[in-house]
Amino acid sequence: MTIVIGYVPSPEGQAALARGLEEAKLRGGPVVVVNSSRGDALVDERFAQGEELALVRDVLRESGVAHEVRQPMRGLLASEELVEIAAEVDAELIVIGLRKRSPVGKLIMGSTAQRVLLDASCPVLAVKAD
Amino acid sequence: MTIVIGYVPSPEGQAALARGLEEAKLRGGPVVVVNSSRGDALVDERFAQGEELALVRDVLRESGVAHEVRQPMRGLLASEELVEIAAEVDAELIVIGLRKRSPVGKLIMGSTAQRVLLDASCPVLAVKAD
Repeated sequence: MTIVIGYVPSPEGQAALARGLEEAKLRGGPVVVVNSSRGDALVDERFAQGEELALVRDVLRESGVAHEVRQPMRGLLASEELVEIAAEVDAELIVIGLRKRSPVGKLIMGSTAQRVLLDASCPVLAVKAD
Repeated sequence: MTIVIGYVPSPEGQAALARGLEEAKLRGGPVVVVNSSRGDALVDERFAQGEELALVRDVLRESGVAHEVRQPMRGLLASEELVEIAAEVDAELIVIGLRKRSPVGKLIMGSTAQRVLLDASCPVLAVKAD
């Protein structure tokens, strides 16, 4: 009943983390939080570090949900990491954050989200920031 | 705690229906099954009719979940119907089916799915057929 959460330091990443924890409580299972960077973490702002990462760990600890944080750096796309880890832990759900489309926004979804949605063998829950 | 399910007569539609009902049982809420057609139902194979629709109603009845089936025909896109109905019933979740990408498949998501994912204000759960 494991839930895999795709986390990046952004409002969408926070929303995915919060909703992923709610779903885990509902199902009584653990979460695996995946924050991946392709290559050099020092220049990748999607890679959580220092205080940001400490905050994530605080949220996880306070939730009371069994958890694990993974920051893989094996050169895969973030989408590939999520899909592979979900398969590895036999996840029942992947939770990702999505940006809202503005009222005049074009119909364009980020390629990471699209890849996860298309390639994951388990269901994918897409949430937006408030 | 209402869950809105996007249903079309296909393996993906069946998967969305099945998973939507599971989620409804987990949360103890009702489901609204939306099967929409833009325009002429007689020539739109996504519009469930006759036996197909009777089967859906059987599955719903056997689930024990409080439910409602809507087949709006007001000329909106299927994605618009889903998003609007979800807002109307204050849904906590929309469940849609997605086609699998073949091993050599291109990265292309159907525009209905993309629109629902980008435009819904509630979380969207995307499931694939087995």
